[in-house]
Amino acid sequence: MRHLEGAYALIFKSWHYPNELIACKLGSPLLLGVKELDQGKSNTHVFQDAHFLSKNDHPKECFLSSDPHALVEHTKKVLVIEDGEVVHLKDGGVTILKSENERGRRNGISRIASVERALSVLEMEVEQINKGKYDHYMQKEIHEQPESLTTTMRGRLIRGGSRKTKTVLLGGLKDHLKTIRRSRRIVFIGCGTSYNAALASRPILEELSGIPVSMEIASDLWDRQGPIYREDTAVFVSQSGETADTLLALDYARENGALCVGITNTVGSSIARKTHCGVHINAGAEIGVASTKAYTSQIVVMVMLALAIGSDTISSQKRREAIIDGLLDLPYKVKEVLKLDEEMKDLAQLLIDEQSLLVFGRGYNYATALEGALKVKEVALMHSEGILAGEMKHGPLALADENLPIAVIATRDACFSKQQSVIQQLHARKGRLIVMCSKGDAASVSSSGSCRAIEVPQVEDCLQPVLNIVPLQLLAYHLTVLRGHNVDQPRNLAKSVTTQ
Amino acid sequence: MRHLEGAYALIFKSWHYPNELIACKLGSPLLLGVKELDQGKSNTHVFQDAHFLSKNDHPKECFLSSDPHALVEHTKKVLVIEDGEVVHLKDGGVTILKSENERGRRNGISRIASVERALSVLEMEVEQINKGKYDHYMQKEIHEQPESLTTTMRGRLIRGGSRKTKTVLLGGLKDHLKTIRRSRRIVFIGCGTSYNAALASRPILEELSGIPVSMEIASDLWDRQGPIYREDTAVFVSQSGETADTLLALDYARENGALCVGITNTVGSSIARKTHCGVHINAGAEIGVASTKAYTSQIVVMVMLALAIGSDTISSQKRREAIIDGLLDLPYKVKEVLKLDEEMKDLAQLLIDEQSLLVFGRGYNYATALEGALKVKEVALMHSEGILAGEMKHGPLALADENLPIAVIATRDACFSKQQSVIQQLHARKGRLIVMCSKGDAASVSSSGSCRAIEVPQVEDCLQPVLNIVPLQLLAYHLTVLRGHNVDQPRNLAKSVTTQ
Repeated sequence: MRHLEGAYALIFKSWHYPNELIACKLGSPLLLGVKELDQGKSNTHVFQDAHFLSKNDHPKECFLSSDPHALVEHTKKVLVIEDGEVVHLKDGGVTILKSENERGRRNGISRIASVERALSVLEMEVEQINKGKYDHYMQKEIHEQPESLTTTMRGRLIRGGSRKTKTVLLGGLKDHLKTIRRSRRIVFIGCGTSYNAALASRPILEELSGIPVSMEIASDLWDRQGPIYREDTAVFVSQSGETADTLLALDYARENGALCVGITNTVGSSIARKTHCGVHINAGAEIGVASTKAYTSQIVVMVMLALAIGSDTISSQKRREAIIDGLLDLPYKVKEVLKLDEEMKDLAQLLIDEQSLLVFGRGYNYATALEGALKVKEVALMHSEGILAGEMKHGPLALADENLPIAVIATRDACFSKQQSVIQQLHARKGRLIVMCSKGDAASVSSSGSCRAIEVPQVEDCLQPVLNIVPLQLLAYHLTVLRGHNVDQPRNLAKSVTTQ
Repeated sequence: MRHLEGAYALIFKSWHYPNELIACKLGSPLLLGVKELDQGKSNTHVFQDAHFLSKNDHPKECFLSSDPHALVEHTKKVLVIEDGEVVHLKDGGVTILKSENERGRRNGISRIASVERALSVLEMEVEQINKGKYDHYMQKEIHEQPESLTTTMRGRLIRGGSRKTKTVLLGGLKDHLKTIRRSRRIVFIGCGTSYNAALASRPILEELSGIPVSMEIASDLWDRQGPIYREDTAVFVSQSGETADTLLALDYARENGALCVGITNTVGSSIARKTHCGVHINAGAEIGVASTKAYTSQIVVMVMLALAIGSDTISSQKRREAIIDGLLDLPYKVKEVLKLDEEMKDLAQLLIDEQSLLVFGRGYNYATALEGALKVKEVALMHSEGILAGEMKHGPLALADENLPIAVIATRDACFSKQQSVIQQLHARKGRLIVMCSKGDAASVSSSGSCRAIEVPQVEDCLQPVLNIVPLQLLAYHLTVLRGHNVDQPRNLAKSVTTQ
């Protein structure tokens, strides 16, 4: 361990020491699950809080994993291994060792001591990791979005204040709202889908707070060592709360004195622990590697964050109430969009042999274009690219011809007329168009009848990305199944990217 | 004109009025070129400054164009038509009309008056629009980069101050440097290639100024109506200086009180006129629709901008001098890179039938990945995508297999070891790799021998993007020629995007 560089979590098994395992970690997560065999009959938690592993003589089974979802079907009792610790499993017994002096590693004079720690209990139910009536986790997670969104909002939208107006209460943030309102800028930091969710929420946060919001891909901020200051509020978005790049950026922002806010789906994760405050998205366990329900819950949480930050402004009161009404209505609207399942399967059938797909969006739905393309890319293994529609004439339009399928998001909002013009220009190049539009607009957007329209219900503009992504998630899912790829474990990818 | 919405430049010709033309414009540029026939023999400028069009009885030829390059081979005398003006050509005579009261257009009580204006002379030589020994403008412009970069830097890198240290002098900015240094943030605003050039210069500007730099695609800023304030410095980058999206964003930033800095290649262009201060890149006329020499000159100007803003900081003095030395050396290094021409042609031959290409870069060369992919996309009409290498594991890695060609930029800088790890992981997925590396690294980056290495000289890290883009420009050029497409006028695209 003294010689290794970077983050790791390793398990060693040797020919020379049968029935023994050695595990160690730095940076990456590692959990030890302990199942006591004579306790299997009773379902109540019979363990005592101060019950130490090494002093327990019951026969037991041990499990090592980087992810609690892999453990929960065996045991809920886990020990979170810490950086620099070494776990030694031998004959059913567990010893945990640690260098006494952290700095000793450098001086070479480290003393090894045995550690005693209490077990913790996973807050997770086995049902969460069952597929139920669905064939794949991704499918299940797409279809449970009406429920996961409801859970995300539960207890957070309330009637309060002297005039009984609707308002947002985010418990984990309320002591920090004043500081956030005074910050010079808000920096959204994330990777992959979490970055896209932040991008979708950026316009409404800018509108309601009046504070400039910068977008940073976590690894790029770290590579550049970009300026972060005390007057900045840095918001870290990660489903797992263990994303290595985001964690590095978090350490960096903390060192530079920024107020750090975490938005994760995992209670007790590194990002949840290391940030000054934050919000849990409560979307429930997400098993499919391609993030779906976490994306929509992340957007909803960030819209609520915008509402909370802007809650002291009188002029935007009406707008805020309209958004809150829209939020309360959102689960029903998502349920409506999920009825497009068969239609998206038909569409997937048409696209099954394509090599490329472009997705154009702008404004609130720039993020929808990026995220829709990312879903298709990561599970259906098709080269799809999300492009800002305003950049079309600055290059991408060259690709438009009668062969390449192009999806355009053109639901009703302030950018609708510009998107109509984009559609007309792609029509003029005989583009093979798939247009997502608001209910009732299908005829007008596909005037020539040459394009396929997907109608979705209209909601408050800043919430539209939550609805608009759903048909694209369904499309990516069906494309993947039809193309015969693994939906839940796409080639080359891991659920939580815990290494750089 | 009272009924039209948006920007336009229109010319009308009617069956009923032979030998007459009517032209009008709003937003988009329109030039009237005037060639006096009896003046053709003498090459000297015989026209008087206060010489009005309508009073001149010499026989003449008139030309209407949105771009001065189309006029210069006929005449250098032009009249820049202004918004709301109507040009009437009849029997060799020209009348220019304008509503007397701008607001009259709305009230319907506008009076039309004839306008008299002086001609101006284009500062442009016919030689600039000749291809010389080259087959295409794009090829010529790639190969003249050593000269265009020299022109960009001419007179701007000097020995100054009491200790005769090397320093940067940007005449158009020197009165505003103090204000820029005090700004809360610097916002780079551009579209397409100009945006990429700004992105390439962002890390060094952040490093030398310590000011957070935000990146904004012009159309996105306008769509979102993102916050811009008096304490912001907004830098507008556009080759033509007429890009519609960038102009809209400029008007918006001015209204919001930001200090506006222009970086253009066209003296007298709208952006040059409307900004508070700025720098001309002096790259010479660029005719090929795909921008090449303007990109490298833009980066050099923005690096000089960073040097100028940071010039008052003692601790970065050595770094700044190293960069200035690097700048002075840059044209020679670019000349060296241009020797890769044949090698890139070979590579293009290998890629001729591909449908897709990914380009991975990070740090200073994230922009190189985006710009390289944009070149291939817009002229070779191949679906290529530039991706931040740090995002690889968050989705794009799923696409890696033994078929898809992937280019990785891995020249020596602080991110080199991370890029080595990216290469290893793509190797492990049997990726078809093209690696751009520093001189002498070819053997080490392609240890398995399975990837194709392109070696480029090493320069100061922040200048490396100027060298690294050149092989990708050559690749895009040769791919286009080999695939039989039009290099200089790619399908569907215009040189200056003067409409939204």
